[in-house]
Amino acid sequence: MASSSSPSVLLFLLLFTIAATAKTSESLSTVFPRAIPGSALKQVPNAKKPEPKFPFKTQYFPQLLDHFTFTPKSSTIFYQKYLINAQYWSHGAPIFVYTGNEGDINWFASNTGFLLDIAPSFRAMLVFIEHRFYGESMPFGKESYKSPETLGFLNSQQALADFAVLIRSLKQNLSSEGSPVVVFGGSYGGMLAAWFRLKYPHVAIGALASSAPILQFDDITPWSSFYDAVSQDFKDASLNCYEVIKGSWAELEAMSAKEGGLAEVSRTFRTCKDIKSVYSAQDWLWSAFVYTAMVNYPTKANFMMPLPAYPVEEMCKIIDRFPHGATNVSRAFAAASLYYNYSGTEKCFDLENATDAHGLHGWDWQACTEMVMPLTCSNESMFPPSPFEYKEFSDQCMRKYGVMPRPHWITTEFGGSVSLLSSIFPPFQMRLFFIRENSSKIRYNFPKNKNL
Amino acid sequence: MASSSSPSVLLFLLLFTIAATAKTSESLSTVFPRAIPGSALKQVPNAKKPEPKFPFKTQYFPQLLDHFTFTPKSSTIFYQKYLINAQYWSHGAPIFVYTGNEGDINWFASNTGFLLDIAPSFRAMLVFIEHRFYGESMPFGKESYKSPETLGFLNSQQALADFAVLIRSLKQNLSSEGSPVVVFGGSYGGMLAAWFRLKYPHVAIGALASSAPILQFDDITPWSSFYDAVSQDFKDASLNCYEVIKGSWAELEAMSAKEGGLAEVSRTFRTCKDIKSVYSAQDWLWSAFVYTAMVNYPTKANFMMPLPAYPVEEMCKIIDRFPHGATNVSRAFAAASLYYNYSGTEKCFDLENATDAHGLHGWDWQACTEMVMPLTCSNESMFPPSPFEYKEFSDQCMRKYGVMPRPHWITTEFGGSVSLLSSIFPPFQMRLFFIRENSSKIRYNFPKNKNL
Repeated sequence: MASSSSPSVLLFLLLFTIAATAKTSESLSTVFPRAIPGSALKQVPNAKKPEPKFPFKTQYFPQLLDHFTFTPKSSTIFYQKYLINAQYWSHGAPIFVYTGNEGDINWFASNTGFLLDIAPSFRAMLVFIEHRFYGESMPFGKESYKSPETLGFLNSQQALADFAVLIRSLKQNLSSEGSPVVVFGGSYGGMLAAWFRLKYPHVAIGALASSAPILQFDDITPWSSFYDAVSQDFKDASLNCYEVIKGSWAELEAMSAKEGGLAEVSRTFRTCKDIKSVYSAQDWLWSAFVYTAMVNYPTKANFMMPLPAYPVEEMCKIIDRFPHGATNVSRAFAAASLYYNYSGTEKCFDLENATDAHGLHGWDWQACTEMVMPLTCSNESMFPPSPFEYKEFSDQCMRKYGVMPRPHWITTEFGGSVSLLSSIFPPFQMRLFFIRENSSKIRYNFPKNKNL
Repeated sequence: MASSSSPSVLLFLLLFTIAATAKTSESLSTVFPRAIPGSALKQVPNAKKPEPKFPFKTQYFPQLLDHFTFTPKSSTIFYQKYLINAQYWSHGAPIFVYTGNEGDINWFASNTGFLLDIAPSFRAMLVFIEHRFYGESMPFGKESYKSPETLGFLNSQQALADFAVLIRSLKQNLSSEGSPVVVFGGSYGGMLAAWFRLKYPHVAIGALASSAPILQFDDITPWSSFYDAVSQDFKDASLNCYEVIKGSWAELEAMSAKEGGLAEVSRTFRTCKDIKSVYSAQDWLWSAFVYTAMVNYPTKANFMMPLPAYPVEEMCKIIDRFPHGATNVSRAFAAASLYYNYSGTEKCFDLENATDAHGLHGWDWQACTEMVMPLTCSNESMFPPSPFEYKEFSDQCMRKYGVMPRPHWITTEFGGSVSLLSSIFPPFQMRLFFIRENSSKIRYNFPKNKNL
């Protein structure tokens, strides 16, 4: 089932670490490249102009295609986009770096108000670095997604090296080598932040990794945990809500199996065109519940979609308010509509032609190469039971991209379990705490007695 | 001057660190490759048979060409050689891994008696892993050194990843995932051991890095330190010895500048053929003094060449015993002959056709790409003053290999100065101590009060 390899997993795990910084005494004649300011955009193909009132300047950094080989192709330069806000910064003050993840960096910057909130009190410079192969940071321009020959350079280790090279160059060009750097990130960006602290402790003194499933590889974490956690969110809101959703899948399948069933499903789901497979409706519901659990923020927000505060609770209120006798499918559809149509502007839904507004599709390549995160649905979850078959998964990847996944590579390269965390943390007292982050209207929920 | 980019720098710095190990609870269906035993050599092209009485078994591991990209070429498999000794080992006991450096792994294994000495008391398994592109571990067979297209995959990050993948696979195949791993290495192999602990703390609980110049990059360490240290070794043996060598360079140049000068130099140096340039004689002397200082072991040994105990002292005795009135050049030649002819079997010397018995020439590529270690000779050294001009160096690399060095890459990737060391060390009490290591007849010189 397509949805069982769902892209991002947001767990709201937040790490913050502090250690010593590196400092060199002399300076070798520099060959560090300088960034190209946004005003010199003509040098950068397809560069977009920044949006009005956006509190960041856009820059483009000449980045190396391959940090880990010295073949002639490896020295190809591409322009990596980054956003910068220096309004609170003074020389020597900290630099807070958002390690961009699998999408347009402006999107992440617009939805990470936390950094703008804390910048004044730290007098921090903010830098949001776009991940290679996302947004405008395309190493081969429009050909970047053409084949494994080009996509082969899209992976986390290259991205981490990009961050290290860019940060070092930026600090040198600012003549502020002593500025401490803290990296921040959420979801895959949080994984990158944690791994950056692990692999580049001499560049970043700390990492704040929010919702970062760095332990969702190999056999470290039970494969069913994620969907069990999503289900628990709905169960916590209302047991009836959980049961309605859990009951909707079989009902939906039965409905579609009848004579004229798909047409009935299409009417029920108010589709713009009749759907060709019941899986489209199933995936549509599935995505709504999973993504809403991921962005179950305590405030109104617009990260994946415009949503009210506590959207899981709102979905369950919709389900629970239905009159007795309504089908599970119609209730599930109404709940999912909150996700797809909170603004109320959608007249019909296009279930089989999903748009990719934030340019997230590169994640599918990453999931087929190094980001092999086995996820299953247990009988206790509200989703249909779903196994993870490595053979089937790798065959899919071979068919789609002509590439074989390397399922043990991430745990070989970055490790896992407790020893990984002890390496990320600096060797003195530290605290592990949790934050639910959101837009600029952020609320901090520090749990008590969480000293580690 | 060619000699100013001298290959290895042995500083006898020794780090030993301990931390926690990773352990996974379940096991994903394995796709780890298994090693090919030495007896199945027919599968491995050009595989050599192990020498008699050599206390290691030879194995070949199917290794990935490029760990950091997913292009079609990156999945090419080559056979990486490693040596294994399990005679003292029992299940769950430690695994001591020598992180092979720039040469044939049998050569390093034959000259690292320290590990064989300590293996019984730790019940340790010993594993010596050959570095890619050295010895028999050639990713493209005889074509491996053909061009930057092939050589491009020779670098330290790929080598570290090779070690991580091989170690993890070995432990899994031994069903001994709980065995703690400590990495050991000398010179460049010591750099790899230290960097391995930095980058793969979840794989190795400690690193013993001997003579590892991890701080000889960028501007971290004064560029003249190495040749100053070599000079100091000779000065410590005898001030006259230092002055004779220091005076020999100008004398040699004056001798060669005369009518028939090169023929006279050739006679003085007992060359097999007349030399074409005075630099050949200069390099020959230079190498003898530098390598002898590098292997100034307190016992008779045969690492670079067969030499007596304390060979620097022996060289200086030869210089000091010469009758009054002998030229500096003739004294320097006699001293250098100790290095080239301690066995007394050489009838003449071939100054212009040096052999590469241990397959070290790959280092030149590494020095032209990432291992840019600027070394200069100060006026205080016993060598002719020699600057380091980056432009000239990089032009040479471009001419020789068609590659541009990345002089700041190592410090970006691995850091430098104190923060690097604090990352390598685990977060509890640790000791920094020094050992002079040698053949199996090792003598340990633990300095007093070196607690860190």
